[in-house]
Order: sequence, then structure tokens, then C-alpha cells
Amino acid sequence: MTVALGQVTLEHLPALARGCAILGTGGGGDSYIGHLIARQAIEDHGPVELITVDQLPSHGTVMPLGMVGAPTVALEKLPNGQEAVRLREHVEEKLGKEVVAIMASEIGGSNGVEPVGFAAQLGLPLLDADSMGRAFPEVHMVSQHVAGIEPDAIVISDTAGNVVTLRATTGPWAERIARAVTVAFGGTSLMADYLLDVAQVRGAVVEGSVSRAIAIGRALEDASMEPVDALVAELGAYRLLEGKIVDVERQTRGGFVRGSVAIEGTGAAAGRLLRLEIQNENLAAFEDGEVVACVPDLITVVDTQTGDAVPTELLRYGRRVSVLAFPCDPIWRTPKGLETVGPTAFGYDFPYVPVEALHA
Amino acid sequence: MTVALGQVTLEHLPALARGCAILGTGGGGDSYIGHLIARQAIEDHGPVELITVDQLPSHGTVMPLGMVGAPTVALEKLPNGQEAVRLREHVEEKLGKEVVAIMASEIGGSNGVEPVGFAAQLGLPLLDADSMGRAFPEVHMVSQHVAGIEPDAIVISDTAGNVVTLRATTGPWAERIARAVTVAFGGTSLMADYLLDVAQVRGAVVEGSVSRAIAIGRALEDASMEPVDALVAELGAYRLLEGKIVDVERQTRGGFVRGSVAIEGTGAAAGRLLRLEIQNENLAAFEDGEVVACVPDLITVVDTQTGDAVPTELLRYGRRVSVLAFPCDPIWRTPKGLETVGPTAFGYDFPYVPVEALHA
Repeated sequence: MTVALGQVTLEHLPALARGCAILGTGGGGDSYIGHLIARQAIEDHGPVELITVDQLPSHGTVMPLGMVGAPTVALEKLPNGQEAVRLREHVEEKLGKEVVAIMASEIGGSNGVEPVGFAAQLGLPLLDADSMGRAFPEVHMVSQHVAGIEPDAIVISDTAGNVVTLRATTGPWAERIARAVTVAFGGTSLMADYLLDVAQVRGAVVEGSVSRAIAIGRALEDASMEPVDALVAELGAYRLLEGKIVDVERQTRGGFVRGSVAIEGTGAAAGRLLRLEIQNENLAAFEDGEVVACVPDLITVVDTQTGDAVPTELLRYGRRVSVLAFPCDPIWRTPKGLETVGPTAFGYDFPYVPVEALHA
Repeated sequence: MTVALGQVTLEHLPALARGCAILGTGGGGDSYIGHLIARQAIEDHGPVELITVDQLPSHGTVMPLGMVGAPTVALEKLPNGQEAVRLREHVEEKLGKEVVAIMASEIGGSNGVEPVGFAAQLGLPLLDADSMGRAFPEVHMVSQHVAGIEPDAIVISDTAGNVVTLRATTGPWAERIARAVTVAFGGTSLMADYLLDVAQVRGAVVEGSVSRAIAIGRALEDASMEPVDALVAELGAYRLLEGKIVDVERQTRGGFVRGSVAIEGTGAAAGRLLRLEIQNENLAAFEDGEVVACVPDLITVVDTQTGDAVPTELLRYGRRVSVLAFPCDPIWRTPKGLETVGPTAFGYDFPYVPVEALHA
């Protein structure tokens, strides 16, 4: 799965977008928007070279890019198209080193797809990796942080052309300040953060993310299986419930979408009720007061018919969905990984139990 | 008044602090804190060279410094002492030019006095000038803005060591973002903004501010006159009312202190009532529904006995005060000056009338 495809072309985009939506666990923004951005950029500038860590040049900076903010806002407030150009200029000026590759900060949702467009626009290769192997809501919830690399410089830009460069003493300070800036920007921003010298990349990123997302999207295209069955097989996922959304409570505040959703079982699952809790992403699933899956493992709500992921901002009453859970990247199961993105990092008082153990 | 004193020593500090409090029109932070900071720095590093615009070297950057945030917070959350050092480093790195002098962003309140301490700490001269000739609550309310100089880079730091560099497309965007960052920092920050190349200084600053503040403080020390009479003579001020504070409504929100205060006349003024409206600074004074003074002219509340200014965060019921109003620097009476800091810039629907005309 970590073998790169050589190139990302227009033909890969639909599968990439569907796969990123699945890995987004509800967050990262609606991947349809990322899809449109990437399509336009490839049409204008040609396909993007997809490289592995081994193929990076010996010097330079890998620039991770990701949209920050509430996906509900991102759905209506589109980028102006020059954010990545400005971020590259500021990063190169700040570090005095050339940016040699783009990386997705998070492979989930629109944030997994947009970097293809940024790489095309900037004429740079895309690294087949990301900082999460999924999506997480906060700035410091990245593999670099677990690997002990703190952000020297975080650069944020908005649709109006403002640019903020941030040197924070800790990851949580970075999150707090970047979030406040994003809210001042109007609720969304594009951020380059946890910049990596090429020598630091190995061990500090989740490798193979882009090709994995494409493989997931292709599984959904497999006409020989029901889409949800194909997904379960591709992901090694557990089916938490098949049913109907019966309640959605969702608020956009403090730069996040927060809320919960209730899903009532149908068919063989009739009489059962699953509750999901959300902070941009699906954080935890409960049934009869018991945790049945939680961060950092991935919980994805998919349309039962098409297998396509339903992002948190598009959850609504009556939709027929299946809820899947599957294991996170091993980096998140380390002590520092769990400290950063385990249940307690989100204010829960229960311990993390791997999804495989919960369903053994 | 624009002739520099050559040096600011420990002996000048009490007069400077008292004068800055008067010019602060209630804002800029309690000048006692600035006084303590400047005293410590001069004791540690020696007196500060006070220079005129003509005495600037031919190349380099003048770095205006000022605290941003709500004075109510600044009263309890003290600086850590390294903010100015970090700002200078970041400014020099960002601009690739040496900082050759410090300037107060605003001569009002603590913000007029602290730069003496920063200059001592950094071993730099202090320019006998500021960006307001008083205090104003928002980032873009500076003489540079009126002179057409927009901020290339704004650098902000906090007590925790975080540093944010901001390149905003407009002054109001700068204000919006810097305010959000300051709130994320905990309500106060030190900011270097509207940095000036030495060639830009003339015409873009209010000259002679430091020596003027010292002269005002010295007038208060004159034992031959009642302090308020001495002030009125020194400032060319109008006495709006002498009385007692009978109501204070004050809230700290969005990074500002906002509110209003009612003052009931005593003695010859018995039966009269004056109302002041506040956004960090005293913005407008009303009597019987009529404006009797307003921004950009200066409105200062002083203790009737000592003549010392009472900052907005220390206004309280029962205090015997005199309210004085006096003319602002001519730069604020230009069309762009009034657009920036006239009554309409603060949401009022009445036109600006100079204080001299209101009391002709």
C-alpha cells in the first residue's frame, strides 16, 4: 500500500475523493470541494508527481497543507485560489529553504484531495503520506508532534490575502492561536504547519496515505460487490450498525462543528440505537451506554446504498447509513499518540480500547 | 516642545508617567505599571538616549511598541520582561534591517512609559515621538495610517513566549486579527507595528510626545498652583465639569474595556450631570444630550485634588474628579484622520466639532 502510483491524474481524482471522505471520519471538509479544486488545477497545470519518502531530494522542506476551521463554513466559503502560493512564499522566506514537496496535513475529506491541486498549481511533487492517516480536529494532533517535532513556524492565510506566521511555544498554544486567527479570518483558513526538513520526514509521517485513499475509492467502484461490503473488506472494518439517522444536534462554535447524532437500527439491527459524538470528526460511538469505538480509531458514517462517506456537516434526519469502525495508524496507539488524540485528549473519562479488542 | 531632553533618567520617570496618564484619556494602561518597568530597566541598564527625528541615523528601522488589550487585564497580567527582546529579533529577521530606535506606539498611559524601559533593555535610543499624541483603542488608529503607510509586518508576543507575525491586507484587518490573537494570548500582548524605515518617519509620527508628557507631569509638580489649574494652563484645556462619579458601567469583552460613566457636578457645578462613553479610552462626553467633547480631541478624567489622571479601569463610585478636554494633534483633524478616529469611526452618528468650537 505504500508503493506510489507515480502520478495523480484526473482519472484518479474520483477514487481519491471517495477514499479521503472515508478516511475523514466525518471531517476534513466535504471532499467534493477538494475534488473540484484538484480537477481545475490538473486541467490547468497537468498531472501531479506522487513520490515516496525515498524519492525526496536530499535537501529542502516538505510543506504540509490543510484547511483549518469548521467544515460547515468551508462548505459555503470557498478558497480564493492564491492561498497556497502565498504560504509557499512565506515559508521559503521564513526558513530560507526551498519547498520541495507538498503533503496533505490530513488525508481525510477535502483536505486529502486539495493538496493534489496545490501541488499542480505550484509545480511541486506530492508526497504519498500525511500527518494523521485520517482527519483530526486540532492543529497539534499530527504525527510530527508524536515524533517529537514541534512547529518552528506555522503560516496561515485566508481568502482576503492576510497572512499570519506563528511561532508557538507548544502544540496546544499553536492550536489555540491558529484557531483564534481562523475565527477572525471568518471561520476557515489554509495552513502550512509542522514543516519538515526532508531529513526529518521518515518516522514523522504516515506513509502511503494517498495511494491508500485511492485504493479505498477503487474498492467502492468494484461492481462485483455491495459497496459497503467492499469497504469492510478493504478497510478491515467493523460494522457498528446499519440504520437510519433519527436525531442530529450540531453547532458551529469556537471554530469547530460540535454535536451528536443518533442512529436507529433497521433490518437485523431493529431496536438498537447508536450515538456518535462529534468535534468536526466522529470521536466516539456508544450503544447502551457502552463505548463501541473511539478515537484514535476511525469511525465513518457511510450511505448504505453507495458506500460513500457522509461528512458531519451533511448528516441529517432520515438518511440511511451504516457506521463502520476500523483501526488507526499504529503511531496513535503509542503512549504519546494516545495522550495527543486518545479519548482523554477530547475530555472523555474512559480509557482507549482498540476497536479490534472491543469487537473480539 | 519638540526639543528633546537628550536623556531620560530615573528623575524624569515620575513626571513622564503622570504626563502619559493625562495624554492617555483613560487608556493605554495604568501608567504606574509602565513606571515600574521603566525604573527597573534604567536601574539595570542605565538612562535612555532621547532623540529627535533629525537625530535618527540614515538607515534602519524605527520600531513602535505598545501593549494591546484591555487595561483591566493588563492591571493583573504583567509582562514577562522578554517580549521586547523577542519582537526586536523577529522584526530584524523579517525586515532584514537593524532596529535603530524604539518609539511609543501611543504616548498615553503605561504605553507611553514602558518604551523607556524597552529602549534601556535593548540598548537603543528612544524617539521623541509617538503614533497618536494620545491613546486610541484600535491597531490602525495611528498617524502612519493617516500618512498612507500600511503595516508591512506586525509582530505580537505574549508572556508565554509565543510570537505571531501578521501581514494584513488593510489596517482594519490588522486590528481584527491582532485583537483575536491578543484574546487567545489571554487578553494582553506586546506589539511592534507600523514599522518605519527612517526615511518614512517625518510626517508619519507625532513629534515631541515624550518631552510633552514630561512637561505635563512637571506642571503637576508645580507647587505654586492648584494641580488642575496648572494642567489647564499647560494643556490649553477646557473644564467640562468638576464633580463626583455617581455611576460606572464597565465590561471587558472582545479584548476591550467598554462602558460609560456618569459624573454629577459639585460646588458651582451642582445639578449638572456629565456622561462619558468609553472604549479603553474616553471617547465622548455628553451633557443634557449634547456632545461637549469627542474623539479625536482628548478627554481626561483627573482627580480634583492631585490632578492625576484616572484611567478607565480605575473609575469608581464616589471619586471626586474633574473632566478636562483639549485639542488633538492636527493630523487627526484631516479628512483621513477623522475617517480613522472621528466619532463615526466609533459608531457615533454625530459629526466631529473641535473642542475649541464647542466651547467658543
